Amino acid sequence: MYANPIEPVALKNVTIDRGFWGARIDTNRRATLPIEYEQLKKTGRIEAWKLDWNEGKSYKPHRFWDSDSAKWIEAAAYSLTSHPDEHLEALVDEVIDLIEKAQQPDGYLNIFYTAVEPENRWANLRDWHELYCAGHLIEAAVAYYQVTGKRKLLDVMIRYAKYIDQIFGPNKGQKRGYPGHQEIELALVKLYRVTGQQRYLNLAKFFIDERGQQPPYFDLEARARGEDPVKDYWAGTHKYNQSHVPVREQTEVVGHAVRACYMYAGMADVAAETNDPTLVEALQRLWQNVTEKRMYITGGIGPTLRNEGFTFDYDLPNDMAYAETCAAIALVFWAHRMFHLDPDRRYIDVLERALYNGVLSGVSLDGTTFFYANPLAAFPEVNPYPGVPLDETRHYRRSEWFDCACCPPNLARLLANLGQYVYSTGKNAIYVHLYTAAKAQIDLNDQVIQIEQQTNYPWDETVRFAIQSEPPGQFTLALRLPGWCRQANIKVNGQAMSTMTEQGYARIDRTWQPGDQVELTLSMPLERIETHPRVRQNAGRFALQRGPVVYCLEEVDNGPNLAHVIIPRESEPAVTFDRNLLGGVSVITGQALRRDVQNWPNALYRPIESPKMTPFAFKAIPYCFWANRQPGEMQVWLREG
Amino acid sequence: MYANPIEPVALKNVTIDRGFWGARIDTNRRATLPIEYEQLKKTGRIEAWKLDWNEGKSYKPHRFWDSDSAKWIEAAAYSLTSHPDEHLEALVDEVIDLIEKAQQPDGYLNIFYTAVEPENRWANLRDWHELYCAGHLIEAAVAYYQVTGKRKLLDVMIRYAKYIDQIFGPNKGQKRGYPGHQEIELALVKLYRVTGQQRYLNLAKFFIDERGQQPPYFDLEARARGEDPVKDYWAGTHKYNQSHVPVREQTEVVGHAVRACYMYAGMADVAAETNDPTLVEALQRLWQNVTEKRMYITGGIGPTLRNEGFTFDYDLPNDMAYAETCAAIALVFWAHRMFHLDPDRRYIDVLERALYNGVLSGVSLDGTTFFYANPLAAFPEVNPYPGVPLDETRHYRRSEWFDCACCPPNLARLLANLGQYVYSTGKNAIYVHLYTAAKAQIDLNDQVIQIEQQTNYPWDETVRFAIQSEPPGQFTLALRLPGWCRQANIKVNGQAMSTMTEQGYARIDRTWQPGDQVELTLSMPLERIETHPRVRQNAGRFALQRGPVVYCLEEVDNGPNLAHVIIPRESEPAVTFDRNLLGGVSVITGQALRRDVQNWPNALYRPIESPKMTPFAFKAIPYCFWANRQPGEMQVWLREG
Repeated sequence: MYANPIEPVALKNVTIDRGFWGARIDTNRRATLPIEYEQLKKTGRIEAWKLDWNEGKSYKPHRFWDSDSAKWIEAAAYSLTSHPDEHLEALVDEVIDLIEKAQQPDGYLNIFYTAVEPENRWANLRDWHELYCAGHLIEAAVAYYQVTGKRKLLDVMIRYAKYIDQIFGPNKGQKRGYPGHQEIELALVKLYRVTGQQRYLNLAKFFIDERGQQPPYFDLEARARGEDPVKDYWAGTHKYNQSHVPVREQTEVVGHAVRACYMYAGMADVAAETNDPTLVEALQRLWQNVTEKRMYITGGIGPTLRNEGFTFDYDLPNDMAYAETCAAIALVFWAHRMFHLDPDRRYIDVLERALYNGVLSGVSLDGTTFFYANPLAAFPEVNPYPGVPLDETRHYRRSEWFDCACCPPNLARLLANLGQYVYSTGKNAIYVHLYTAAKAQIDLNDQVIQIEQQTNYPWDETVRFAIQSEPPGQFTLALRLPGWCRQANIKVNGQAMSTMTEQGYARIDRTWQPGDQVELTLSMPLERIETHPRVRQNAGRFALQRGPVVYCLEEVDNGPNLAHVIIPRESEPAVTFDRNLLGGVSVITGQALRRDVQNWPNALYRPIESPKMTPFAFKAIPYCFWANRQPGEMQVWLREG
Repeated sequence: MYANPIEPVALKNVTIDRGFWGARIDTNRRATLPIEYEQLKKTGRIEAWKLDWNEGKSYKPHRFWDSDSAKWIEAAAYSLTSHPDEHLEALVDEVIDLIEKAQQPDGYLNIFYTAVEPENRWANLRDWHELYCAGHLIEAAVAYYQVTGKRKLLDVMIRYAKYIDQIFGPNKGQKRGYPGHQEIELALVKLYRVTGQQRYLNLAKFFIDERGQQPPYFDLEARARGEDPVKDYWAGTHKYNQSHVPVREQTEVVGHAVRACYMYAGMADVAAETNDPTLVEALQRLWQNVTEKRMYITGGIGPTLRNEGFTFDYDLPNDMAYAETCAAIALVFWAHRMFHLDPDRRYIDVLERALYNGVLSGVSLDGTTFFYANPLAAFPEVNPYPGVPLDETRHYRRSEWFDCACCPPNLARLLANLGQYVYSTGKNAIYVHLYTAAKAQIDLNDQVIQIEQQTNYPWDETVRFAIQSEPPGQFTLALRLPGWCRQANIKVNGQAMSTMTEQGYARIDRTWQPGDQVELTLSMPLERIETHPRVRQNAGRFALQRGPVVYCLEEVDNGPNLAHVIIPRESEPAVTFDRNLLGGVSVITGQALRRDVQNWPNALYRPIESPKMTPFAFKAIPYCFWANRQPGEMQVWLREG
């Protein structure tokens, strides 16, 4: 269905049931999905679909509660793909029944603007999330239909989408509006792909094309509400929602990070479907800006809580990093689409960086608690997430839920759908993006190719592929050579071979025989990574990275006062696999120096004295697994000495 | 009038018309006071006293506009003390006439709650600043009466204070409330001192004693407004306004920093007047907490904009430091009172630290622009003050005014009143706190002692005192030996002498003859200061300080990328006086290393390489004068290498 000749191999064709991601997906299915359903129930989010809210209820719906149910349904759908589960499917169907009943005669569907503030329907696109909620429900409907073949939610959302398509558009009597929180654009492209109805693609394109045009729609609707569009706008700038200029003129990633990346993903979808090079050029510029100037080493983006988003080039604070889980997830969505517009490993390198670090840090190892913000350093009482009062907590820890609960179900739907990020096909080639134990059946040239990956990546350097092409078939197996890897070796059936590399993918072009074996070894030395010198926060510091995995020091392993730990340049840390730690991870150990911080006077300041440094053995663990043991300090960027 | 035997020498007896502070006070009088009046006029703050506000006006009063006029009047009053100025006095009288007319028949006086929301009088003490405004008006009234003898504003405020005293109190029918923004407590003690009316002292004591008692008054009034006292309270904690526990049980400085220090100042006043050791003990604990764990080297306090206040021990971020100008000023107020409760130099050391650094940085050298927040490092586009949208400015610069305009007139009243901080008298002694060219007539033992200080402090180490005691009189001249000074020499009439030192004051006890000369030399080597190791932000860094003056590097002198400047331990910086720079300041120059930041790839991250370091000559200027030349980076805490 992609206009572009390269397309992802669908989730249903890829099974990840072992290895690093197998464990995470399993936890997601067994722990996270049920817990999230319980939270939806407990907090009133499911009951709210009955639209019978009144002041006597124990809850009051938020303006975007709909999206929480939607993302959970979408996650459940993906999970059902590989793990049929009657109980789960019945729960989803119950929620869908409620949603269907909540649809208004004209097709409109929204909890808050039906049950709480019906008078405010479409009154504030800028701040009030109606189109955002619609988008998530469309995504859920498409996913659930694709997995189960059940049309109920899809039909509901088609009715709603038709209604939205009547309300919004360029014609007389229509609103020339667009969402304040982007999301529906990419959802409408999904709806177009599943229904074949051009109108949904057109509407997605309209929302994208109209954004940032003069006069700003958000100003017009603010005035219609009797508000001053500038003075009464809390965010103070249209950059907050990326409507400051038309999207094709945007050159820097600005504003709310999730809004931004959902929009870029939607732009990429529209670009793919409409073959629009002007959108692609804008996206490439924006990609360059975010990855070269505004992204944490973890793939986290959006450094500040002030706008939950971007600030300026090279501004990457560590302990107050917002780096919202949803923003890293949105970066994954965008990166994946970029590859299919512009098949280059650099997009998947970032996707991998985010997955193994800034996304996965968002959920505890047991799948039950979640980070909203993902700082790169932690100290007692430093809390980058505003949901917790400043002085009510000593340690920044994962939470069971949030009032604004976008991140937990977003994690769930990403992990449950991880299979779709492993492979793509196109131009007589199979692209391998991610290395992970997985089995796949890949349609190529009217043939089904079976590929099984065996690997303990990212802990091990070697990935083995068993390729079953029956009958034998000629095609290219294109293996991503990650940007962090400086030495890759490929063997086919035990024979070392050299390959052409195109756009970062090593191309093995041959006629594949049943039982062919490929062995890829990605040299994975421990690296000390430094940051661009203009990132003032990391001056004099480095991070430990091995393969795609960024490491950190935690207090539980290294004692307190991590700010006073120095790793001497001549230290030679070693990597060992610890099967008993955190479910089995590679750890880094080595010699460090710690400043003796005892015997200070009762004073904040004193004339400097030569610090007494004591050697000790440090241990670093993968950043994504921090905060799974006893609370304490954490630090990614380490002082070199 | 102080119950305590030590009391400050009043402003009217001390003239500072030369030297470091003479220049600042002169600028304050010539530039700042007129500009602030123009701003009050231009923004509607004066017109608003007419109480004829309606939606058609170009302005809408804030809830605490009254306080802006009040602080300006108070500043003008202090200025008139040494510089009679008919024009200025006429302007003040005009404003006072408006204020008088704005008083309601029952004595109530407030712009917003008369002209805009009369129905909300006293409805929300927690957030709405009525008592705060009353306090500032009382301070203005007392000051203006003391200088001019004119009673109009004083009488207005006496009527208002009587009305407030009827409304609030422990008796039946009275509200057991207290201010959400403390300030009136110290003002009521001033009113008590000038009128001799015990009821004002009692009311101040009531506000202090009642604060933090159960059930919390702020919760009761929130419920009366139909609000949930927790969920609907934006700050989320009573710590925000220091009403979480009774004041005598408080052990840590918490919440909004200005509220906190105004309260501590008020507590000190009540403690002094009521001889209450329980208040003094609480204040000493709080003092210890703030100065040993929560204060910048500049005397700035309150590191975050989230609550405009305190966070937790040892949390002192630099480039996002809030360190509100008003908070440093409030610390001066509190410190001064602490000395008079507990005569020890440590209080004046902090007062001096704040004055020369975190207070004075709040105003430009020409007196026309102001900082609200006073960060200790600046980078393009880093903006710790929320009044400016995040991405609308490249450099954090002083502003001409603020919507919330507390800082500019607070600076004006402090500078105009600086004379009162120089000396105290008590127990047959004259205490010299501040070293600054000044002339004073000091009443001691029914005699007037004239003291003239001659000094170019803080640039020079030597202070000369000419003491005229006619007839000769026996008393102690107690000279503060600042905490930063490790070698002080005293000569009397050219003869070196050794003295007893008590609580940090060198006591020269003799019978003074007319024409006696004292020469104090405070050894003022350049020091590298380090921070308590638990302040993670300053790990591996030091600051340059000489005497009370903290230094910083600015981009205009040192080029960009200050994060990559290293001052080698063996560097021996020199101090020179540059009469052409910033009105004449001592500068520090020396050898530093700068990392070569050229030739980076278009990437944020790379495997570490050995940095190439280039030597260069650095120049540091006094922190208080930063941002007076071309915009750029600034840094107080420097990397040692």
